[in-house]
Amino acid sequence: MSEVYAARRERLRECCSAGGSATALISRPANVRYLSGAAPEGAVLLLGMDQDVLVCTGPLDDQYAEGRPDEAVRVQVLPVPAGDTAVAAADLASAQGAESLAVEENHLTVGRYRAMNSVAPRLRLGDLGGAVEQLRVVKDEEEIALLRIGAEIVDQALSELLESILVGRTERHLALELERRLVDHGADGPAFTTSVATGPNSGRRSHRPTDRRVEEGDFLSVCLGATYRGYRCEIGRTFVIGTSPADWQIELYDLVFAAQRAGRQALTPGAAYRDVDRAARQVLDSAGYGSGVPALTGHGVGLEIDEDPQLAPAAMGKLDACVPVTVEPGVHLPGRGGVRIDDTLVVRPEADGGPELLTITTKELLAL
Amino acid sequence: MSEVYAARRERLRECCSAGGSATALISRPANVRYLSGAAPEGAVLLLGMDQDVLVCTGPLDDQYAEGRPDEAVRVQVLPVPAGDTAVAAADLASAQGAESLAVEENHLTVGRYRAMNSVAPRLRLGDLGGAVEQLRVVKDEEEIALLRIGAEIVDQALSELLESILVGRTERHLALELERRLVDHGADGPAFTTSVATGPNSGRRSHRPTDRRVEEGDFLSVCLGATYRGYRCEIGRTFVIGTSPADWQIELYDLVFAAQRAGRQALTPGAAYRDVDRAARQVLDSAGYGSGVPALTGHGVGLEIDEDPQLAPAAMGKLDACVPVTVEPGVHLPGRGGVRIDDTLVVRPEADGGPELLTITTKELLAL
Repeated sequence: MSEVYAARRERLRECCSAGGSATALISRPANVRYLSGAAPEGAVLLLGMDQDVLVCTGPLDDQYAEGRPDEAVRVQVLPVPAGDTAVAAADLASAQGAESLAVEENHLTVGRYRAMNSVAPRLRLGDLGGAVEQLRVVKDEEEIALLRIGAEIVDQALSELLESILVGRTERHLALELERRLVDHGADGPAFTTSVATGPNSGRRSHRPTDRRVEEGDFLSVCLGATYRGYRCEIGRTFVIGTSPADWQIELYDLVFAAQRAGRQALTPGAAYRDVDRAARQVLDSAGYGSGVPALTGHGVGLEIDEDPQLAPAAMGKLDACVPVTVEPGVHLPGRGGVRIDDTLVVRPEADGGPELLTITTKELLAL
Repeated sequence: MSEVYAARRERLRECCSAGGSATALISRPANVRYLSGAAPEGAVLLLGMDQDVLVCTGPLDDQYAEGRPDEAVRVQVLPVPAGDTAVAAADLASAQGAESLAVEENHLTVGRYRAMNSVAPRLRLGDLGGAVEQLRVVKDEEEIALLRIGAEIVDQALSELLESILVGRTERHLALELERRLVDHGADGPAFTTSVATGPNSGRRSHRPTDRRVEEGDFLSVCLGATYRGYRCEIGRTFVIGTSPADWQIELYDLVFAAQRAGRQALTPGAAYRDVDRAARQVLDSAGYGSGVPALTGHGVGLEIDEDPQLAPAAMGKLDACVPVTVEPGVHLPGRGGVRIDDTLVVRPEADGGPELLTITTKELLAL
């Protein structure tokens, strides 16, 4: 694995050199982990001229959730508060003779930036922008394998829930039970707050579970994700409670299903992000549901649950092979409820069989 | 409740005016909630010259965990990504004729700060520093009542766990079960990642639960917290598994207990933060355990689990009445384990009976 991290750092170093800086300071936790293998709380990674240093505030003995650092990276534990590692790293870079340092302006606070300027006044601070985020978009097969395991875990947790009795249980209890099952099956933990939405809440993006109980005739929409060795995937499904769904429920479900399928089928290397979004969105638009559709119909996943690319109307860029994304259109009708269907897939060329579906739970409308 | 929020905003406005700025932008979520009653994801609060505005990116229908906004605050929903609310607010302040705007430099990223400068070039950006954090240190009785309920919840969750069989169960399962019980008893959720540490892991601060199983003869240390209507408290206890604790376990436990008691007894209005820390620390130091003691022995709690004040050797300042803090010394012996004892208390004058203990689970050494 060590060569993988070294190669990532080397690619970043090339970006930095092109930007005129020989050294860089990485502070965003997912980026620190991507480049060094570990991201203890508050740690920053200094890509130095001589050696790369992971600046931490405590010993690295809590490795369960943060990974293990690459052996080629020097780990330096400093007795400073977690907010001050960036300042300590600026000091270190300056002491190593660095003249400029590229930082992540989209992550670093103004306060830390000023403190860095103050401890190392001759160090010229530049902006690394989203260089590491861009490197992270296309995954290697090891990363995809971790996402695949995470997807198996969410499929298992969901299928077990469906075997249990649902009527009368609250959204919060169902969400907690799902999270427990994720961990039972080996996840580090949930990838984000599990969403369980019933009746009028169903179909809402990022709905936070309430004390509402599942009732006969409800739509039940569930969105959950697993983190496995740092990698996050998600699944969303909508079910109907009781034996006979209403006509409007069947119609709405079929429509969202068609939109989600259109989105999935648009996932080919070279497809524009906005065209994938449009493929899904226009199915809903043409049925008159355009205003109820969220701002994006999918997004990248990896070390964070919401990464580049964004599949949205104004997004710029094109899909590459080996980019894992969600496709998750939905419709919510205020007061009535709605439907969301969400998969994690990996973009693959047609020759390799097209998009690889990681979350394989059925998308038939199950009446539970 | 509305007057409470209005009064808080008024006090902040006085700080701002003293700093030369009539308007302020609050971006740190706990501060936004403290001043407006709600903090939807990405929302910022503009304390304007005419009216105060909560700038959000979506409708406020997910109120379960984020509270309800004060009716005196205008809620403005803008179709911008969550990262851009601060920029939209700068634009708004500028349009209202503001000349200067105090921002939270310790929270705002350099990227957002630059974007604000760019949309509102004539707006002079100042630094609000930790003004809101300082206002939050002393709690009113409503806030303390919420912390008290949270503490009852953690006491209940812990006592139920102690009635169950522990040997053979993993740290991760015990942690999940505790979190489920917190929610069962009405918590919004855990206040932080529940820590369960067994055997050689016991006594480590912020230990992340692993798959290690509880064994006879282990120390078992547990640290958990509940969030109740946004307010976070914590408790930490150490137990011994089996009927006969070893001599070293009893000695170490008694020592940490004495240190924690000394810290609790030092909690009086007017006591210097560092003196409270020293009271606890010197008990451990004088027994030769100084190097194993964490950097702080307690901290404030409230809308965040780790607030001002810090009870640490170099901390500046003195305790006021109605400040809730933790007292949580601990010792961890590498390879053997250790003890942590952690309570949430509210500083009260002697005339009112001295410090109010919120977490009342026994601190006797229980052999389970």
